[in-house]
Amino acid sequence: MRIAVMGAGAVGCYYGGMLSRAGHQVMLIGRTQHVEAIREHGLLMDTAGFRAHIPVRASTEVSDIQGASLVLCCIKSSDTESAAAMMAPFVRPGATVLSLQNGVDNAKRLHAQLLRTVSPAVVYVAVEMIGPGHLKHHGRGELVVGPSAMSTEMIEDFVNAGVPVDLSDNVDGELWAKLILNCAYNAMSAITKLPYGLLFQNEGARELMRLVVHECLAVAQRESVAVPGDSWQGVERIAATMSGQFSSTAQDLMRGRRSEIDHLNGYIVRRGKSLGIHTPVNQTLYCIVKLLESAFTVIRR
Amino acid sequence: MRIAVMGAGAVGCYYGGMLSRAGHQVMLIGRTQHVEAIREHGLLMDTAGFRAHIPVRASTEVSDIQGASLVLCCIKSSDTESAAAMMAPFVRPGATVLSLQNGVDNAKRLHAQLLRTVSPAVVYVAVEMIGPGHLKHHGRGELVVGPSAMSTEMIEDFVNAGVPVDLSDNVDGELWAKLILNCAYNAMSAITKLPYGLLFQNEGARELMRLVVHECLAVAQRESVAVPGDSWQGVERIAATMSGQFSSTAQDLMRGRRSEIDHLNGYIVRRGKSLGIHTPVNQTLYCIVKLLESAFTVIRR
Repeated sequence: MRIAVMGAGAVGCYYGGMLSRAGHQVMLIGRTQHVEAIREHGLLMDTAGFRAHIPVRASTEVSDIQGASLVLCCIKSSDTESAAAMMAPFVRPGATVLSLQNGVDNAKRLHAQLLRTVSPAVVYVAVEMIGPGHLKHHGRGELVVGPSAMSTEMIEDFVNAGVPVDLSDNVDGELWAKLILNCAYNAMSAITKLPYGLLFQNEGARELMRLVVHECLAVAQRESVAVPGDSWQGVERIAATMSGQFSSTAQDLMRGRRSEIDHLNGYIVRRGKSLGIHTPVNQTLYCIVKLLESAFTVIRR
Repeated sequence: MRIAVMGAGAVGCYYGGMLSRAGHQVMLIGRTQHVEAIREHGLLMDTAGFRAHIPVRASTEVSDIQGASLVLCCIKSSDTESAAAMMAPFVRPGATVLSLQNGVDNAKRLHAQLLRTVSPAVVYVAVEMIGPGHLKHHGRGELVVGPSAMSTEMIEDFVNAGVPVDLSDNVDGELWAKLILNCAYNAMSAITKLPYGLLFQNEGARELMRLVVHECLAVAQRESVAVPGDSWQGVERIAATMSGQFSSTAQDLMRGRRSEIDHLNGYIVRRGKSLGIHTPVNQTLYCIVKLLESAFTVIRR
């Protein structure tokens, strides 16, 4: 299978690397820093199960996604429109396009630019780039997709490459379930610079996370989204399975990069406002992350 | 007048320094670092109006408050009980004891230990210690006290020393008014490491501060406290008059010290809980500051 990964960050490198390791022809599109390192040494994958330099093709040019029968969009939610506009001329007719992004509306936003079917995939993996072309995997790695998102052969290819794929006929609900976990952990981990496990050990933090979950579920309910499972058990599971992990928002802030917070707690706040639902804890967390981002700008001036 | 200042932090040094400069006999009780510097070079006061080394007596021994006819308690709210227990044997009968502290219940807490009248003074001053024995004053400096807190002569002495003293027959309400300003600014400034002016320029931050004020006023109302003036105008005034100031909570966190947050947003949360009033924004800010404090502990281990 020829696969293009748009966005060679931690998530893109993990799935691109796993598929490449299983023999698929993968092209990673990313920033110069990672692309150069990957071209020189391959992708260094530090996972729970193995550590290896995986040969993968890599490029800084979006046009190099051409010819792929599967395109994995692993860009930041804040870059969805701009990346889609760049990709549009190069996505092959008939190619499967998956959005492996945080937030609940990326497939729709990609669709609006690409004018073709884009399916969301809910991503559960704890990864980070710890150096140029160097991926650290802390745990998990499964995807959840809708019944028509991928062909049976494609799913088999993923499973054979060590990537479990769960099917769900309520993938919107699954995206919301993931969004709620992101809302509970991402901002708090970023603001406090604490990993999930230490956050969850703190009684006050657990109480805030409960309030966040409660606010999110109130918005979901008014959006007529049926969130599957028990969201609080999901929060507990994250603490248990990814205890050493810092959120992607934390990683972004530590590196002075703009985060996806507009599409996490910020999304809940915006939807809440338009639906007349108070979301004060999400709003506080959102506002603080935005202030921390703006502080970078102030310091850099 | 013989004056003892318990707690030679920024507030204690400011009022002690102003009174000493006006010819009063002042004894500052504080930590070794400041005491040694003050003994060697005097207290270096960097104010809007003057810069001078002010000779003041200083000691690390609480027993040296002995003989003072006026005791100014300028300790952190979190140290009130322990400091009062140390002071108790040395406060002269008939001495005036004032609490120049943040929070609304310090006079009561001091009274419980000292078993004598303690009057609160509401402090409006922007100061910080920028080095051993080196005080930086950014603006203001007035006190608000109840009608019976200080004798007429004492008030005259303060005014002559450049310390305006306003009388109020609703000093509890004044303490709450100050508490509300502290709740609006202290945690946010500490968490974002931003000064008041930059915080207030941010629309999201202003919205959070409005919510904080609203939650605090709801608690005050149920406590039957009449908060004087328009609290939101107070918030605006702080941004205008102390725009470059970082909150004391911010200064504490930057220096790895325990803050007074338990007696600011934490007080609102506790009172709110016992009165059945939701205070989610105060709770979020409070919890984050506590997590940032605990993170110091984690890092230091």
